[in-house]
Amino acid sequence: MSARAHPVDDDGEISPVDTSSPRQANTPYVHKVEVPPKQNLFNEFMYTFKETFFHDDPLRHFKDQSKSKKLMLGIQSVFPVIEWARKYNLKMFRGDLIAGLTIASLCIPQDIGYAKLASLDPKYGLYSSFVPPLVYACMGSSKDIAIGPVAVVSLLLGTLLRAEIDPNTNPNEYLRLAFTSTFFAGVTQAALGFFRLGFLIDFLSHAAVVGFMGGAAITIALQQLKGFLGINKFTKKTDIIAVLSSVISSAHHGWNWQTILISASFLIFLLISKFIGKKNKKLFWIPAIAPLVSVIISTFFVYITRADKKGVQIVKHLDKGLNPSSLRLIYFSGDYLLKGFRIGVVSGMVALTEAVAIGRTFAAMKDYQIDGNKEMVALGAMNVIGSMTSCYVSTGSFSRSAVNFMAGCQTAVSNIIMSIVVLLTLLFLTPLFKYTPNAILAAIIINAVIPLVDVNATILIFKIDKLDFVACMGAFFGVIFVSVEIGLLIAVGISFAKILLQVTRPRTAILGKIPGTSVYRNINQYPEATRIPGVLTIRVDSAIYFSNSNYVRERIQRWLTDEEEMVKAASLPRIQFLIIEMSPVTDIDTSGIHALEDLYKSLQKRDIQLVLANPGPPVINKLHVSHFADLIGHDKIFLTVAEAVDSCSPKLSDEV
Amino acid sequence: MSARAHPVDDDGEISPVDTSSPRQANTPYVHKVEVPPKQNLFNEFMYTFKETFFHDDPLRHFKDQSKSKKLMLGIQSVFPVIEWARKYNLKMFRGDLIAGLTIASLCIPQDIGYAKLASLDPKYGLYSSFVPPLVYACMGSSKDIAIGPVAVVSLLLGTLLRAEIDPNTNPNEYLRLAFTSTFFAGVTQAALGFFRLGFLIDFLSHAAVVGFMGGAAITIALQQLKGFLGINKFTKKTDIIAVLSSVISSAHHGWNWQTILISASFLIFLLISKFIGKKNKKLFWIPAIAPLVSVIISTFFVYITRADKKGVQIVKHLDKGLNPSSLRLIYFSGDYLLKGFRIGVVSGMVALTEAVAIGRTFAAMKDYQIDGNKEMVALGAMNVIGSMTSCYVSTGSFSRSAVNFMAGCQTAVSNIIMSIVVLLTLLFLTPLFKYTPNAILAAIIINAVIPLVDVNATILIFKIDKLDFVACMGAFFGVIFVSVEIGLLIAVGISFAKILLQVTRPRTAILGKIPGTSVYRNINQYPEATRIPGVLTIRVDSAIYFSNSNYVRERIQRWLTDEEEMVKAASLPRIQFLIIEMSPVTDIDTSGIHALEDLYKSLQKRDIQLVLANPGPPVINKLHVSHFADLIGHDKIFLTVAEAVDSCSPKLSDEV
Repeated sequence: MSARAHPVDDDGEISPVDTSSPRQANTPYVHKVEVPPKQNLFNEFMYTFKETFFHDDPLRHFKDQSKSKKLMLGIQSVFPVIEWARKYNLKMFRGDLIAGLTIASLCIPQDIGYAKLASLDPKYGLYSSFVPPLVYACMGSSKDIAIGPVAVVSLLLGTLLRAEIDPNTNPNEYLRLAFTSTFFAGVTQAALGFFRLGFLIDFLSHAAVVGFMGGAAITIALQQLKGFLGINKFTKKTDIIAVLSSVISSAHHGWNWQTILISASFLIFLLISKFIGKKNKKLFWIPAIAPLVSVIISTFFVYITRADKKGVQIVKHLDKGLNPSSLRLIYFSGDYLLKGFRIGVVSGMVALTEAVAIGRTFAAMKDYQIDGNKEMVALGAMNVIGSMTSCYVSTGSFSRSAVNFMAGCQTAVSNIIMSIVVLLTLLFLTPLFKYTPNAILAAIIINAVIPLVDVNATILIFKIDKLDFVACMGAFFGVIFVSVEIGLLIAVGISFAKILLQVTRPRTAILGKIPGTSVYRNINQYPEATRIPGVLTIRVDSAIYFSNSNYVRERIQRWLTDEEEMVKAASLPRIQFLIIEMSPVTDIDTSGIHALEDLYKSLQKRDIQLVLANPGPPVINKLHVSHFADLIGHDKIFLTVAEAVDSCSPKLSDEV
Repeated sequence: MSARAHPVDDDGEISPVDTSSPRQANTPYVHKVEVPPKQNLFNEFMYTFKETFFHDDPLRHFKDQSKSKKLMLGIQSVFPVIEWARKYNLKMFRGDLIAGLTIASLCIPQDIGYAKLASLDPKYGLYSSFVPPLVYACMGSSKDIAIGPVAVVSLLLGTLLRAEIDPNTNPNEYLRLAFTSTFFAGVTQAALGFFRLGFLIDFLSHAAVVGFMGGAAITIALQQLKGFLGINKFTKKTDIIAVLSSVISSAHHGWNWQTILISASFLIFLLISKFIGKKNKKLFWIPAIAPLVSVIISTFFVYITRADKKGVQIVKHLDKGLNPSSLRLIYFSGDYLLKGFRIGVVSGMVALTEAVAIGRTFAAMKDYQIDGNKEMVALGAMNVIGSMTSCYVSTGSFSRSAVNFMAGCQTAVSNIIMSIVVLLTLLFLTPLFKYTPNAILAAIIINAVIPLVDVNATILIFKIDKLDFVACMGAFFGVIFVSVEIGLLIAVGISFAKILLQVTRPRTAILGKIPGTSVYRNINQYPEATRIPGVLTIRVDSAIYFSNSNYVRERIQRWLTDEEEMVKAASLPRIQFLIIEMSPVTDIDTSGIHALEDLYKSLQKRDIQLVLANPGPPVINKLHVSHFADLIGHDKIFLTVAEAVDSCSPKLSDEV
């Protein structure tokens, strides 16, 4: 037996065994196991606190350093630029220069279009690609993220703002509320980071984000039909039904064929260039510069043909000059303050989700650590400063970051290059955009948001986790059929529901013995596994907390009842022992202990012995402290199911 | 090796092993393990749905029955009385009669006092002990619960109602709102039960309830000081500071010594009788009837001495007659409808928590099943009917149920007996209460709520789970220093925070090899456990979901970084293998898979092999579906840590 049972423990979990109990004492194969050392309250609390808020141990570098060094490190941790700037060299600059120029060419047309999504003047899109990237370059810790306005956030912000103020009737209040929201978006982001609450954004599950993004992308594409088809009267709603009906209703006279010609042909051009980029990774720059190229060509084309006279809508006027200060425009009082705050929190969180996701992805690719919370402080500061310099909520853009990465960016300097290019554009080139047709911007945006509809990811989600899929679809349809807000609500709601489900309804399984071994496994999974007559073995697959303790108890009792009925029907020996395999029970709380006590009481009434197999260290601790171990008897707690069964049914022990 | 590794699997968990991989194929000690059979979407969904809402399989009895039988069973399941009434016999009746009379004698004085807690006329307390118990007797499934108004709910209801309407200035609206709240409390309870959402009350953790009850008990006792000291002008607030200051301020002239004499002496009498009951369980009836006895004595005493002339406050007038209909008094429109709804939901949930807790406790003691959801429907129906017959929210009372149990009740008939006694009291005896001094009611209530301050439970909670203790104390101090509402909010808030913590910050541990065995365990718990040079083994103690996937990844990376620094410092061989022990990882979702992929990528950059040990069935399924298993290689997934280590470091395998 000893040789056999020896590596029983290879699962790395052994339940402490009270050797005072005679049975255990004189069995050779039982390991002495020390109960984990008792921790004092303070340490225990500090540990939990640290793991909750400082699990990444941000202050590790500060340990045993001189005061001045600590100060230096402190400044560095806020402005990582100080650290990497020292090691910066020409080779890095080459990479950053190319990457910077590429994303600049990509961002300028996008910015103008995205600003329209937020019902803002095009220039604010460019403003938002000038200041925020500079701030981020100094404070951010990601090397690959490309900062600026993004489609989804622009759409969300626009929807939320329009719900409060009509941008056409009073554009001034609208603009002010936009800056107010941006300010509070930044404050929210910085606060989350500063108070180490970054983990809160994890509650927006990956699946929900995929669905939300996909829905938003489609909504955005639909919005572009206005510019794409050259429609004048267009619905203010964003849901698919309202948009399509307004498109169809304007089919007869509302469409403009010249516009359609331009947008369609250039969209095809963009798609082809994207295809080429996909086929040959070396040619990534073709899809990257294609938008700017098409802007230049189409603008020139419209200029010479004066197509604008024939109803092709153009950007018309784009102010020259740099970001004016907008500090005095922010509402710091009145009821717009509250509205701005609400909008800011929502759009800030969504922006954060996108940026952090990007940061993580590329950090994993190049294997460098980014401190999520520090990142949030950087993004927050960037938006706060942005809100005071006529920028609206900006964050990391999926598409541009990918280009940035492929173009071989080395540091955040690529963002600086980009913002310098934007600066020059603002100073000298804006007049050239006068004849740029809105159609081309529509084409560019449609082309830009297509990848956000991630069909493969959705299929994978469906395969892996059905509930995730429900969350994904809920968000998706919520966005396209109702609104971005509702979609977001649904996404968050279902994500939370999933957590509740996880903590209220853990799995349980009846274990059987695999013939010829002493292995006990789920009989549903291993049909050949055989029950031991008179013994019922149940595994509980979760920590037992107040949220599931009653369910676990009732579920075990139901297993027992079913089994007893089955046994009676088959006139087999009655159940005498109930073995609970506790290996996966990572923890237990007061309610859990009470549930076990209730179970024990009801089992006593039925004259059934309760036996525990392999409870983990925290669990065994609490079983001892609560004297539950004394209640059921220390000799009822075993290393493994096999040993438990041996002791329960001596008549079987020789078989084993 | 084979003999050794054989019962490795005693933990009842084996990871499927791809035998196509050469290494596995020609190692003797690897069990072939089938991947669990694929389920189709519908079954999977139905299973989850069933476990969530119908885990107790309430319809089991309906299976393969004739239509008429099904109908019969349906009626029975709504009115369990039909079932047990048939088996009812005289012996049972004896037990129920005694129990019923005992709890009646206990409830009558309590009812009068509790009604005052809700700022309602005493008669409503008695009304609420007449109709609801009858309804429950027909519909309820608990045999031991004693129905009627209870202290905590009365206090809560009173506080919530007074926040809306002043009972002194317009008592009529107050009464109507009380009935409205009762109606919606019932509707809430019934709805929760009907829609199988009973598990929602489990989110109020045991610890939180203990703290809340304790705080409420003290608040109630403080409220009684008015009657106890015979104070006329008393604060309307319930927090300890306001109450004590108002007590002290009235010390000079506000107190009435005759009142104090009565209340103090009878409180001592009650405490002594309780002590006797504790010492000798046979004498449980002494504390049970003591209140009624003291009411009779004190009433008689006041009557002959006319102490009421000397400022001893008395009940004065108590209407004769049965519950009048109050259906027309319920607000079914207007803004009181909404207020009533809100108050009803809150008090209904709290009432439910108490009743269900009692039901479970005694069901476990006598080992009979009660269907929590069916129970809620019964309680709900009882309160709805109650609200139409001049009753306010009633539920199961801890103290009276305990007495009921000790008095040897057999079925809900004891409730019927009690309500008959109350009926007779209402019809004939109410005038006798005219001279009952409020002081005695105060004494009775103080005596009744003392046990709710459960010090031992609190100590146990402190010992078992520190966070539970925080929730407990939060609720406790919230109630006594602010208000019952706030206390309740804190309780629920902390309970939820605990769930979030549970799902966001799972435990992780570094495993080491116990010398002389092939056991791998937490090195913090087993200091003698030794690390294997070049190998880092980490155990993750929870399902990996979107809510914790990033934490898990970052935590593992931090373990790795720490280890590498340590290794570099000690100039040991560099880490080449990262083994993740997955036994406790009961499930994984899309975000979890992505986290693993990110981890894998960053490990590749560091030239470290990722190895998995013993992932459970659902996990291995998803690893396969998501092709993560292909990514890291099937030969990187092992039965146990020991085998993983063997394969990782051949140079060590002979030691093992």
